Amino acid sequence: MKKQNVRTLSLIVGTFTYLLVGAAVFDRLESLTAEHKASILSKIEKQWMAKHGVSSEDYRIMEVIVLGGVPRKAGKQWKFAGALYYATTVLTTIGYGHSTPNTIQGKIFTVIYAVVGIPLCLVLFHSIGERLNKVFSMIIRGIKKILKLKSVDVTDVDLILAVTTCSTITITAGAAVFSSIEQWTYFDSVYYCVITLFTIGFGDMVALQKDKALENPGYVALWLVFILFGMAIVAACLNLFVLRLVTMNTEDERRDEAEALQAAAGAVHLEGDVITANGSILSIGDPDTRSLGKADLGSTTDMDSVCSCNCVQCSLYALGFSRGRFKYPL
Amino acid sequence: MKKQNVRTLSLIVGTFTYLLVGAAVFDRLESLTAEHKASILSKIEKQWMAKHGVSSEDYRIMEVIVLGGVPRKAGKQWKFAGALYYATTVLTTIGYGHSTPNTIQGKIFTVIYAVVGIPLCLVLFHSIGERLNKVFSMIIRGIKKILKLKSVDVTDVDLILAVTTCSTITITAGAAVFSSIEQWTYFDSVYYCVITLFTIGFGDMVALQKDKALENPGYVALWLVFILFGMAIVAACLNLFVLRLVTMNTEDERRDEAEALQAAAGAVHLEGDVITANGSILSIGDPDTRSLGKADLGSTTDMDSVCSCNCVQCSLYALGFSRGRFKYPL
Repeated sequence: MKKQNVRTLSLIVGTFTYLLVGAAVFDRLESLTAEHKASILSKIEKQWMAKHGVSSEDYRIMEVIVLGGVPRKAGKQWKFAGALYYATTVLTTIGYGHSTPNTIQGKIFTVIYAVVGIPLCLVLFHSIGERLNKVFSMIIRGIKKILKLKSVDVTDVDLILAVTTCSTITITAGAAVFSSIEQWTYFDSVYYCVITLFTIGFGDMVALQKDKALENPGYVALWLVFILFGMAIVAACLNLFVLRLVTMNTEDERRDEAEALQAAAGAVHLEGDVITANGSILSIGDPDTRSLGKADLGSTTDMDSVCSCNCVQCSLYALGFSRGRFKYPL
Repeated sequence: MKKQNVRTLSLIVGTFTYLLVGAAVFDRLESLTAEHKASILSKIEKQWMAKHGVSSEDYRIMEVIVLGGVPRKAGKQWKFAGALYYATTVLTTIGYGHSTPNTIQGKIFTVIYAVVGIPLCLVLFHSIGERLNKVFSMIIRGIKKILKLKSVDVTDVDLILAVTTCSTITITAGAAVFSSIEQWTYFDSVYYCVITLFTIGFGDMVALQKDKALENPGYVALWLVFILFGMAIVAACLNLFVLRLVTMNTEDERRDEAEALQAAAGAVHLEGDVITANGSILSIGDPDTRSLGKADLGSTTDMDSVCSCNCVQCSLYALGFSRGRFKYPL
């Protein structure tokens, strides 16, 4: 099996293992508390129903009213500021789900808005990330010059360290701000920032939902800037990590490619039938084989235009992306 | 201003405009319905309270009980299958939020689990996406050979079309399956699949939450495979789009780089003070300037190792990533 396939399979197995281990830990950490909470709630529920003489049926109606009314408690979710907040959670894929469309038209527009907007948002984050990396490179080079280090080159490890530090500062500083405005504990704020900036967005903790905060344009703007800047820096950090890892696959691709080129250069053209070592006869004169042979030669010629630079192994190629004269070796 | 900065600024302005337009449309589509729903709920709430003689205070207690009990209705959320479901929504960043950790330990573990696992999951999607692109390239090339087209090369447009088609098929076919199992309308299922596979994950519609579905291992496994395969194909599609767009920036970088090299090649070394055209005196003998000059020359030599291939413009470079001998031009 090709090395790349083995690696993909190992990644699948690794991720599933990670999921299973995670599930076991979450089960252990949360299961008892959840059951305990459920039994207490169930007891209070029965007491409450007995106290007010409410039937099970009436209780169900009550549940529907309460659950339907949740978003309303937080202020006008669909007036402009709320709608902007919602649009931001769609574009960034945070998707808290604190307010979701109720109309068919709203759902259709959400689908179209997401499909068009998410790539735009990803390009924006790439672009900001790339500009940030430039700035970091300048700063790191400056520091190395001041420290009079032998080499002032910026390595990928330098950059990953710088971006990770900046992400950590963004999360911890952001958590301090939200903790003071939203009256959350500092730890809860850190949890909120991580869940938000990694775009998980559970919606168990949502900023801008207390005291009609959505009607305070200053706080809405602060949140928006924090989210866009914070996500750009976290995305830049993730990109650097991921690209560091995916380049491994590309190196294998390039090795295969080089071998294919070498093999093609050393290939001998055969006309007529060929008797192989085990006595079987291969008919080279067969039209299908001939056309295949031609096609193969064609693609070998194409291979001349394959990148042979000494650079970062062309991650587009790692992602299976071609452009212009660049061809896919099959 | 540098072209790349102008492009980043345009992207920021463009994204904000897109957000504002989206907010205006969502406001128009949802605002009235939401207000109407809220007023009806408020009326029923008052009627219900009057009918059962429940005070406002008792009603608030009731709300807490109902809201706290929601996850419990869907079966055991934190037993192994539920915990696996939760872990998957964390790793993939879907984050429905249908069940969230209640304990401090659960929250801490979620943060660590996400920070370590999300890059792993991204690498997995990249890897599957890249294998898929290989398969698509083979199929496209095969079809072109059968159709006896002049060129059998696989272009990026071919690949984007193929991956987009495959994403659409995945979403529509997945929607059909969920529609029949979860008893949702077909349109709601499409909405669910888009919101899930683009990792928005509102949590307004969550599979595996009815009739103790979490206790059915077959359905849990089906969901897991659909999510991982579906997300890989949608991610591959988004990657191709985004990389097609970010390569524009890289082309500018390469142009700047070529200009810098050209300028460096034509540079003349000056010793002592230089009188400029406007009569001011530049002291080249200044130690700081001298060391800067040396450093600059050093980096110009380094530039020799900068990629000069004719390939896809090295998207790693577009993302500000360096490795080995590759250096950042500042």
